[in-house]
Amino acid sequence: MAISVVRYRDADETRWGVVRGDRVAPIEGHYPSTRDFMGEGAARARSLPVDAAAPHELGALDLLCPITRDRQFLCQAINYHSHMRESGISPTASPFNIFFRKASSCLAAANTDIVVPPHVEFLDYEVELGLVFSRDVSGPVAVSEATLHEHIGALVLVNDVSARDVQLSELQFYKGKSYRSFGPVGPVLALVDGDDLARFDTLRLRLSVNGELRQDASTTDMVHRPAPTLTELSALQDWEAGDLLATGTPGGCALQAPATPLRLLAQVLTPAKRRALLQKAATRNPKRLRPGDLVEASIRSEDGAIDLGVQRNKVVGGP
Amino acid sequence: MAISVVRYRDADETRWGVVRGDRVAPIEGHYPSTRDFMGEGAARARSLPVDAAAPHELGALDLLCPITRDRQFLCQAINYHSHMRESGISPTASPFNIFFRKASSCLAAANTDIVVPPHVEFLDYEVELGLVFSRDVSGPVAVSEATLHEHIGALVLVNDVSARDVQLSELQFYKGKSYRSFGPVGPVLALVDGDDLARFDTLRLRLSVNGELRQDASTTDMVHRPAPTLTELSALQDWEAGDLLATGTPGGCALQAPATPLRLLAQVLTPAKRRALLQKAATRNPKRLRPGDLVEASIRSEDGAIDLGVQRNKVVGGP
Repeated sequence: MAISVVRYRDADETRWGVVRGDRVAPIEGHYPSTRDFMGEGAARARSLPVDAAAPHELGALDLLCPITRDRQFLCQAINYHSHMRESGISPTASPFNIFFRKASSCLAAANTDIVVPPHVEFLDYEVELGLVFSRDVSGPVAVSEATLHEHIGALVLVNDVSARDVQLSELQFYKGKSYRSFGPVGPVLALVDGDDLARFDTLRLRLSVNGELRQDASTTDMVHRPAPTLTELSALQDWEAGDLLATGTPGGCALQAPATPLRLLAQVLTPAKRRALLQKAATRNPKRLRPGDLVEASIRSEDGAIDLGVQRNKVVGGP
Repeated sequence: MAISVVRYRDADETRWGVVRGDRVAPIEGHYPSTRDFMGEGAARARSLPVDAAAPHELGALDLLCPITRDRQFLCQAINYHSHMRESGISPTASPFNIFFRKASSCLAAANTDIVVPPHVEFLDYEVELGLVFSRDVSGPVAVSEATLHEHIGALVLVNDVSARDVQLSELQFYKGKSYRSFGPVGPVLALVDGDDLARFDTLRLRLSVNGELRQDASTTDMVHRPAPTLTELSALQDWEAGDLLATGTPGGCALQAPATPLRLLAQVLTPAKRRALLQKAATRNPKRLRPGDLVEASIRSEDGAIDLGVQRNKVVGGP
């Protein structure tokens, strides 16, 4: 059974605590970075007595992002069959596990407002399962389903907020996905063990906008699963405990790729014309996010043994 | 006049020192991160007496990468007119300043071997000028030529080593440019002031392979200059002192875009077929890097007042 932990502000300090129903039991010690927490802090959370004092009301706490901004924010692109189809990509034709980054300064608390930059017309949502590393890796490791729990210490709920007009006209995803507030994470950091990770295929991701369900999918639709993904990633780069890997979003985004001829036509446009086309298309897209919208996202296992909580984000700003 | 600083191993410690001819004068204090160094360390380097003891011979030191791996490795894509042309992109048609990231674990000492992963057939070089931030920024700032020196504390030489077959078949640049050893930086960190930055347009970038000059360009060919780039970047994300922004490479890379019809044809291929095509093209490309090649890069101002040193990297590994 996963242990739900929150990071919160207590007077002038940041603290970590274990969620017990609607109460929170503080964890001893100070852990300025999620890296620090994933060691001693996580061990203390796991061994906290069931009768430990839980003086805080969960709903009254000022919850912070459980991933601190000194951590890497790694992402997998188009990693659900349903999202590949709506993006106009054939799952059989694209065998690569594509990685990209979001700037860590976009990491935000679960219920932070999503601030739309003035020049962005086409804002989109992407509910994603985030894997949080429990140990440092600085060379290739062969990770299997059986050894996954040695590397993944926690799961979190992520919204990979995306400015489609910026992302798709500049081709590199970094800018369009990195504006401040574009990475709400949490509310909880769910510490998991091997038994929890064996429930991986029972996780369900949901996202609604103004109460309308837009994304509703199972992790069984995932293309590149965590174990082979970590094996490939470790051959590419280092990571540390507390670093975050968002594993891609399922179908249901506002962005739906146009028919193939129009998509190929867009490829020959100049980047500036492509952005103008995307912005024009956005004004006709009833699903794009607009100021005042409320985005709600959740991830939980069918049996409730893993529950990453609910994010509620209001969209503000914009053109 | 820029002050050249090196980071080096001294017994079991890492130290920083000021280069004085072919000698090195140690700087007092320990600065585990380039972030730490850019504050007190840089101030001490600037005020080091001319007659300070310089007990080390530069050529005998074990030089380390002057940018530590806890720092962000930010990059600008296609930022020289000459590289845009050879990439098949019209400078007038692409108005965007495109940012991407390299994994910080690819940061390597200036003379490190470049290790080609077994699956990479098309390895390429990119000499680039790196800007090193001197202060933390966590919100939008308007940077002008006149205030640039308040944000850029040092310049470094960067080789943005690139696996073109991976980069161009997966479209996101992150993976193809992030393999360990794909980011040699240094040898020196050149501390600069406003007078030095006023010499920006006199900098010349050069790169040769096995003694054959391949890249030879002036920073005057740069498309998006540092001041407007920092203004836009600050509206996107945070940075800290010691973080690195590589400003793009000029023309002369091994990769030369095919004629427009073939390039458009490649767009409609599946990613797997695109990689096969790129790998086939690579075998006919005499300029791609191969095991045993020696890459030498340098950046200096015409008057020698700014000299970022010389990198010498041997290519090893490969298919």
